[in-house]
Amino acid sequence: MANTFGHLFRISTWGESHGGGVGVVIDGCPPGLLLSEADIQPDLDRRRPGQSKITTPRKESDTVRICSGVSEGKTLGTPICMLVNNEDARSEAYSEMATKFRPSHADFTYQAKFGIRAWAGGGRSSARETIGRVAAGAVARKLLRERHHVEVLACVSQVQNITCLINPETVSSKDIEDNIVRCPDPRKAVEMIRLIEEVRNEGDTVGGIVTGILRGVPAGWGDPVFDRLEADLAKAMLSLPASKGFDIGSGFDCVKLRGTEHNDPFRSTDGRVHTTSNRSGGVQGGISNGETISFRVAFKPVATIMHEQDTVDAEFRNTTIKGRGRHDPCVLPRAVPIVEAMAALVLIDHAMRHKAQCG
Amino acid sequence: MANTFGHLFRISTWGESHGGGVGVVIDGCPPGLLLSEADIQPDLDRRRPGQSKITTPRKESDTVRICSGVSEGKTLGTPICMLVNNEDARSEAYSEMATKFRPSHADFTYQAKFGIRAWAGGGRSSARETIGRVAAGAVARKLLRERHHVEVLACVSQVQNITCLINPETVSSKDIEDNIVRCPDPRKAVEMIRLIEEVRNEGDTVGGIVTGILRGVPAGWGDPVFDRLEADLAKAMLSLPASKGFDIGSGFDCVKLRGTEHNDPFRSTDGRVHTTSNRSGGVQGGISNGETISFRVAFKPVATIMHEQDTVDAEFRNTTIKGRGRHDPCVLPRAVPIVEAMAALVLIDHAMRHKAQCG
Amino acid sequence: MANTFGHLFRISTWGESHGGGVGVVIDGCPPGLLLSEADIQPDLDRRRPGQSKITTPRKESDTVRICSGVSEGKTLGTPICMLVNNEDARSEAYSEMATKFRPSHADFTYQAKFGIRAWAGGGRSSARETIGRVAAGAVARKLLRERHHVEVLACVSQVQNITCLINPETVSSKDIEDNIVRCPDPRKAVEMIRLIEEVRNEGDTVGGIVTGILRGVPAGWGDPVFDRLEADLAKAMLSLPASKGFDIGSGFDCVKLRGTEHNDPFRSTDGRVHTTSNRSGGVQGGISNGETISFRVAFKPVATIMHEQDTVDAEFRNTTIKGRGRHDPCVLPRAVPIVEAMAALVLIDHAMRHKAQCG
Amino acid sequence: MANTFGHLFRISTWGESHGGGVGVVIDGCPPGLLLSEADIQPDLDRRRPGQSKITTPRKESDTVRICSGVSEGKTLGTPICMLVNNEDARSEAYSEMATKFRPSHADFTYQAKFGIRAWAGGGRSSARETIGRVAAGAVARKLLRERHHVEVLACVSQVQNITCLINPETVSSKDIEDNIVRCPDPRKAVEMIRLIEEVRNEGDTVGGIVTGILRGVPAGWGDPVFDRLEADLAKAMLSLPASKGFDIGSGFDCVKLRGTEHNDPFRSTDGRVHTTSNRSGGVQGGISNGETISFRVAFKPVATIMHEQDTVDAEFRNTTIKGRGRHDPCVLPRAVPIVEAMAALVLIDHAMRHKAQCG
Repeated sequence: MANTFGHLFRISTWGESHGGGVGVVIDGCPPGLLLSEADIQPDLDRRRPGQSKITTPRKESDTVRICSGVSEGKTLGTPICMLVNNEDARSEAYSEMATKFRPSHADFTYQAKFGIRAWAGGGRSSARETIGRVAAGAVARKLLRERHHVEVLACVSQVQNITCLINPETVSSKDIEDNIVRCPDPRKAVEMIRLIEEVRNEGDTVGGIVTGILRGVPAGWGDPVFDRLEADLAKAMLSLPASKGFDIGSGFDCVKLRGTEHNDPFRSTDGRVHTTSNRSGGVQGGISNGETISFRVAFKPVATIMHEQDTVDAEFRNTTIKGRGRHDPCVLPRAVPIVEAMAALVLIDHAMRHKAQCG
Repeated sequence: MANTFGHLFRISTWGESHGGGVGVVIDGCPPGLLLSEADIQPDLDRRRPGQSKITTPRKESDTVRICSGVSEGKTLGTPICMLVNNEDARSEAYSEMATKFRPSHADFTYQAKFGIRAWAGGGRSSARETIGRVAAGAVARKLLRERHHVEVLACVSQVQNITCLINPETVSSKDIEDNIVRCPDPRKAVEMIRLIEEVRNEGDTVGGIVTGILRGVPAGWGDPVFDRLEADLAKAMLSLPASKGFDIGSGFDCVKLRGTEHNDPFRSTDGRVHTTSNRSGGVQGGISNGETISFRVAFKPVATIMHEQDTVDAEFRNTTIKGRGRHDPCVLPRAVPIVEAMAALVLIDHAMRHKAQCG
Repeated sequence: MANTFGHLFRISTWGESHGGGVGVVIDGCPPGLLLSEADIQPDLDRRRPGQSKITTPRKESDTVRICSGVSEGKTLGTPICMLVNNEDARSEAYSEMATKFRPSHADFTYQAKFGIRAWAGGGRSSARETIGRVAAGAVARKLLRERHHVEVLACVSQVQNITCLINPETVSSKDIEDNIVRCPDPRKAVEMIRLIEEVRNEGDTVGGIVTGILRGVPAGWGDPVFDRLEADLAKAMLSLPASKGFDIGSGFDCVKLRGTEHNDPFRSTDGRVHTTSNRSGGVQGGISNGETISFRVAFKPVATIMHEQDTVDAEFRNTTIKGRGRHDPCVLPRAVPIVEAMAALVLIDHAMRHKAQCG
Repeated sequence: MANTFGHLFRISTWGESHGGGVGVVIDGCPPGLLLSEADIQPDLDRRRPGQSKITTPRKESDTVRICSGVSEGKTLGTPICMLVNNEDARSEAYSEMATKFRPSHADFTYQAKFGIRAWAGGGRSSARETIGRVAAGAVARKLLRERHHVEVLACVSQVQNITCLINPETVSSKDIEDNIVRCPDPRKAVEMIRLIEEVRNEGDTVGGIVTGILRGVPAGWGDPVFDRLEADLAKAMLSLPASKGFDIGSGFDCVKLRGTEHNDPFRSTDGRVHTTSNRSGGVQGGISNGETISFRVAFKPVATIMHEQDTVDAEFRNTTIKGRGRHDPCVLPRAVPIVEAMAALVLIDHAMRHKAQCG
């Protein structure tokens, strides 16, 4: 069950980094949506390795094929299977990984759990697994946009110590896609790119924060007590490779304020209720309140570095390992479409759940 | 489905703050566990209102009754239903809430979602709902302790700007329970208690951070790609009232370090693999690695304050509201057993899942 | 998870025959439904032991209490917990069962599965467990009636060799409830009652068939490929104690006909499509087609008989056992409301699922 | 969620009869199982069209490819995706179906549910969809055989009025596969084949019964109250195209016997408990009792016939339709591996669930 996400708009992903390919099955997509590969490919291209000088150079076209669930250009309401072949699968580059566990990778834990692992390229724990998520997320985003007028965005708001203020009400997709690091502040973007290049040249890696923004979500989505909107977003984000934290609205900074400072007062204008501040982050009691939802996801520095590190081998003997060949200095630019995809998957599921119970 | 948590050790909670009571059904508990109310009540007492001068003064004995699933002192493997009656349910104290939405509470969003709400005391969105979680968590903790030698702890590590360093390897339940704020550092605890009392006297509230610690978890628990251990912990914690953020291991601080600084090297000692640092927080690739798991949960200041605030009424007219009667200055001390309960529920589910697939 | 049924209108039942009571939690009920115990009790009374001379004489008032999820007479959209206490729990009457396995009961298999069992009265395997189902089913039936104009009926159509023809289009609740065996043909009912009394006087038991009828279901409910409407009905019915078979429409008799005889031709009358025969039983390809749905459930003779039988004891030694005290000669009259409840639970779940995906 | 089956060994199927292919993803397969296409293909060949003169002549090689979840010949514990391309997809042969609803097919109900349908060849409602089930079932059967010593068999026991007695304790796979109708009684098989040929020559179709047999299932599998083993088997079987009924053990014939005749006495021989008759069909109270499990599935005559039939068109006007081209006179021989697959999927899921809770 661990490779399935969502209840009503349910996806199942599959595939290893160096196997026959990766993909996803969407079960529960509403019928009648115009859909073709052209709706999916742009998001995959934003996730693709080798898209810029600051990402991993692995060469993959990541061309998606829709195998089912669409007829004459429209979704049928039946499962949509989407496939991407693996092309640049040079397993030999990973031969050392067959016998040694890379520090802060999942090699050791997969071996401990399953007693076996696909050692080449991380197998299932590779970021390649997120292709299925992004493909399914593109369908969810289209549904949200066309049927619910909801906009899903993400952007890089911090790289190591370089931070950028985001205005969740005004930031646009164009601002974000305007530069290769996907930070909407062009001046900060230049600094971030410079830092990532510097880090890359040192064979090192760097982490940061992706901010997610969900605009136009009507009041009423989210299912307490366990499936609160923020709980499902948190799970979605912590299910991503390299993520270490999630917060929403005021987030971890909420601890600095007192109740008198933190509460969001309600005001009514022209018969529409809104809050005059948004420390809640668009969610109260687990349910959207009609304000813009904003959240943050912390990503650690990529574990593969071009330096020698202490580790153990498969026989539990002390040894060292050093990354070679490819090296991704920063996961953040490619994480942006993945965060958007996961947020969209959470939202569409809750939109359908809300209709089922309260529609 | 929103009031059900877990897959194999699955709980369903029910109850409003001012209805006939609150409770939980556990479905899937292994048979043969010695169990009585005496195993449950201590954790409920730690969650109970009125337990100290720094918590809400609502008077509830919160006495639990096991109604099913146990025979002759042992679990049967059948559903365990546990009930707690509501006693101090003075609805009249809440009459203003019938027509006005309290800022940063769930009144408005429940109304928006369901078109109806139990306005007294917050109904289902009340912290009283967590009684069922704590009762079920006590069973999970007993199973973890007796059958898996796993210890589940939580403590208060920050109240507003007063922080306390926690050593996850050594902190003990005794240290934590030694004072009413549940901070294991006695000097910091005194400061925290003083701050909470001060805030209470001002009719205000304050938030902070609860740190969770899971010791003795074997390598191999957690189910990527979606049900990573940290993803399920994140969902569990963000499903709690007033929580705004979750992180694990290095958490949000991971962004400050480079890969060379952040990675956890493996070493082998006497045939046992361990890491020489623990920035991963005991989890790599979504699976436990045998190290101590530590995570943080941010709780906002309680929304009910004794000050007049702007809000709207049920007819969407601008008005003001002021808390009266009871007032909980800080949710943190009572959140400790709730965090423990949720963590235990996540762990026992993964223990059972691991046995099913890889056992 | 085994004590949970349904996806969107999800119920969890709990309770043993001689424990603290039995009950159910409904998770996902739509808000705003007028609901009180008066909506539930009539169906429980139809399921109650001791209601007539041809059922078990156990004395239970089976009075239901709604503990949550309803405020000021209306459902809140939050979990509805309903409780019934056990009253006539004379465990001593079952003392022999503590050490001997009753033939064709679940004593042996529960012991084999769980290594422990609540021996008094069958514990969880008792028909008392169906109280929770009937209570939840009453809510589902009310929703179906008021919001979907769907009528759910069941009746006894066969007792051993006495059969009664049912016209699914015309049979009424009044016809069925007009006699204690719940057979809508009054002449056959007299014969059935006489047979059951005769069998009871011989200390024996007898089985038969309950026919279920669902009228007014719109075309489009049911979710292929796995959650076909007939598949979910089949699961629901085979989950009932003592049931041995399920069929729909032509059912097992379908094998006698050729395709030319079995197919249901479509005709259009006044713009409405209907079939001129209904061998499909209202379902084609797993989806309702707008015709009346009819199905059959076979119930075996009750296993408890007043005769000495071969069996083994807890130490696996050969011995004999003889029923004493209470004796239910025929489960069929009381199975009628249970079959209705399960059918209603399946339908309301599919109604909600249909709205979510295709609404 | 409707295209997902199972909880711990969970499959998701996808694909239409004339789209890009069909397939399945298995989520939860235990690691370390030797697995290659050679383990899957034989069952697919038994399901394949065109395998004999008494099945549909559609030409498909149905060659399976494993795309993920297996590395160096062993399962990884990660999702296993298996694909089969569609080859003989002559949509033009179905052009009449674009505008007319075939009687007793799913054309009308899919249109009613989804407002759209893949009309060529039945789309998702085609029997081609069962390819994914059979592929996944082959993996489940291998696990059952190698890790649990459980044997899963099915055979044709009735074609219209020709019946064959099956001895569930002794019937062998060899007996079944010895003839093209898959009836273990060679004399009856000849009669059945002759009948099917006769029916085929008349452009007609015929139904019958497939009997399933599960040997070696240990006492203790099955999860009351809702996920009884027979309930999950019933759902599995009624989810198959063209199935109309399911019964287990004495089944519908249970109504003819009294309790004194129907009960299965226990006896102990050499410390092993068994029953001296098996009217329970190997299941008591929803849990296996260690005896052979046997059940029956009724399949209606195939709906596509070479005769003119009344129907309506997409504008709801009365018209007629006549099958042309391909024509499958009897679904039974090909249903045998499908019934086996579904039974195996139910069993492996319960084996894993049993280990999780009671292992």
